[in-house]
Amino acid sequence: MRNYLIALDAMGGDFGPHISLLAAKKTLQKYPTLSLIIVGTREKIIPLLKQYDLLDHDRLSFVHAENVISMEDNPIYVLRHVSNSSMHTVLKMVADGDVDACVSAGNTGALMLLAKQALKTIPSVSRPALVSGLPNNCGGHTYLLDLGANLQCDSDTLFNFAVMGSVLCEKVEQVPKPTVALLNVGKENNKGSDIIKRSATLLGESNYINYVGFIEADELFSCKADVVVTDGFSGNVALKSYEGMGRVFLQQLDKAVNSSFYTKLLGKLLSPILKKQFKHLHPDMYNGASLIGLRGIVVKSHGSANEIAFSYAIEQAIKEIQWQIPNSISNRLEAVLSERDCLSHE
Amino acid sequence: MRNYLIALDAMGGDFGPHISLLAAKKTLQKYPTLSLIIVGTREKIIPLLKQYDLLDHDRLSFVHAENVISMEDNPIYVLRHVSNSSMHTVLKMVADGDVDACVSAGNTGALMLLAKQALKTIPSVSRPALVSGLPNNCGGHTYLLDLGANLQCDSDTLFNFAVMGSVLCEKVEQVPKPTVALLNVGKENNKGSDIIKRSATLLGESNYINYVGFIEADELFSCKADVVVTDGFSGNVALKSYEGMGRVFLQQLDKAVNSSFYTKLLGKLLSPILKKQFKHLHPDMYNGASLIGLRGIVVKSHGSANEIAFSYAIEQAIKEIQWQIPNSISNRLEAVLSERDCLSHE
Repeated sequence: MRNYLIALDAMGGDFGPHISLLAAKKTLQKYPTLSLIIVGTREKIIPLLKQYDLLDHDRLSFVHAENVISMEDNPIYVLRHVSNSSMHTVLKMVADGDVDACVSAGNTGALMLLAKQALKTIPSVSRPALVSGLPNNCGGHTYLLDLGANLQCDSDTLFNFAVMGSVLCEKVEQVPKPTVALLNVGKENNKGSDIIKRSATLLGESNYINYVGFIEADELFSCKADVVVTDGFSGNVALKSYEGMGRVFLQQLDKAVNSSFYTKLLGKLLSPILKKQFKHLHPDMYNGASLIGLRGIVVKSHGSANEIAFSYAIEQAIKEIQWQIPNSISNRLEAVLSERDCLSHE
Repeated sequence: MRNYLIALDAMGGDFGPHISLLAAKKTLQKYPTLSLIIVGTREKIIPLLKQYDLLDHDRLSFVHAENVISMEDNPIYVLRHVSNSSMHTVLKMVADGDVDACVSAGNTGALMLLAKQALKTIPSVSRPALVSGLPNNCGGHTYLLDLGANLQCDSDTLFNFAVMGSVLCEKVEQVPKPTVALLNVGKENNKGSDIIKRSATLLGESNYINYVGFIEADELFSCKADVVVTDGFSGNVALKSYEGMGRVFLQQLDKAVNSSFYTKLLGKLLSPILKKQFKHLHPDMYNGASLIGLRGIVVKSHGSANEIAFSYAIEQAIKEIQWQIPNSISNRLEAVLSERDCLSHE
């Protein structure tokens, strides 16, 4: 790995800055050529850097930012009236080329708007999309987008999502010609809205997309598609439903195991094998949603991420730097759109 | 229980008519004052009635229907060009008052359109909604609607869903003043589309709705709301995501338990308690989605239902007859809409 430099917005997330500092420490140990810049308010960060023995780390530096954007702040208000926050600072570092990427666990809506303002989108992309590689049933990842950045989408936007998701999956997962499906309420051609039907036509026409048809939400992670495309409302609902059901199951399993001394004993004996089996489904393991379609790398960590989860988000940023995702997406989109121009002139 | 009469469309579902016949037999045993009419093609049904010893049952009769609507048939084609199917027949029986309700596991889109045509909607309802009471984390049910009958919905439609879902939950679950939430991508007031924001205002203004705000999909079954309202696309995605994740977890649990002789033994010992704990989450237990907003009772059984699941759908129909759901919904909607008229004239 070359020498990469990533800026961390340490002020986001539900549990305070110590999460990003612990994640930073862990990731620096794992990647000896990685350097990190921690951005946050001096009063909060300096004591923690001391506490975690990071003050004199030769690959970690600190930059002060005056303001903090809270999870409750209205993104449009932030865009218009707030400046000099930790989020503004990390995005400006990416925009100015001072760092290779940034990671934030802050307010998603604000990150979207500020990232678009600071970094600008790739030509032909109107708004960035939020995408994550979620663990599927075959031990790999299914890339789902959009996860909530674009609540309503037209067919061209869904088409662009398919292109961008394909590039990300192909590079990061090393899957040649990733299969792409559209999320719908049924598999038959007559199902879904006019927007979805038109998207299906566009995707079917392109040689750059390995389009395999509609997919229903119960098969999202059945490995029928490497990339699943939908609008941000449905994508968010699908992702959170999976997380919610996962939590319900783990709670029920816990209740069953803790219902008596006898089951506790059996559960204790089974526990290591259960942990191993469920490990790849744990939300920590797929933390790190990427904002793609921008002229720079921005990774969003889950607000409720712990240090393990936050360190996965940093690793996601490392992979995107390695594969130069913004450039790859830009080049692919250019090729795809010129193909569409040719098709429309035939 | 009074003497109820329910018509079963025996030709729907993925596994053939024997499912509905086995479910009929089971339900007749459980409810001694219930009578059923089996509707289907003579050639298929009569041999099965013989096989299951149902030919001379004094509370079961058979009605022949010439045609069958398949799961693949285009609903609009069916509406325009098909007649005399088993689905047509059961719906006509409800419309003519010959039976108290009907149950079908057939093509959902066709059932929607034919039911609307045959039964008509309640005043002020433009299209029926599909709703199901799903097992929640507190041992009760959360009513989610719409599950796919109305892909795009305006604020007035979502408001009507809230009223209809409240009535169903209040009556069937015996929950006084059920809490109602709107599914959204965040809990804050500024989240979501204009349609969702306007729906929130309408719901907040009504004294007939116990509106508690937005809910995210990971908390759908956390008991924060008795009724969750959303458009049919998102509702379908949420429901199927839950089902999909449930399946993934059960598969992983199975893999973990079957990974060695030792874990198999432990799993076998834990199995009864696990079965008990997970029983209420099993899809069989919440089969039976209701088409509400019609002037009659129509229950949709899942296409992949087995006989246990199908019998739950028949029981759902029984509860709706007991509580006269169509009348109750009609009366409540009238009251709510006259309240809204008053509010708009204040």
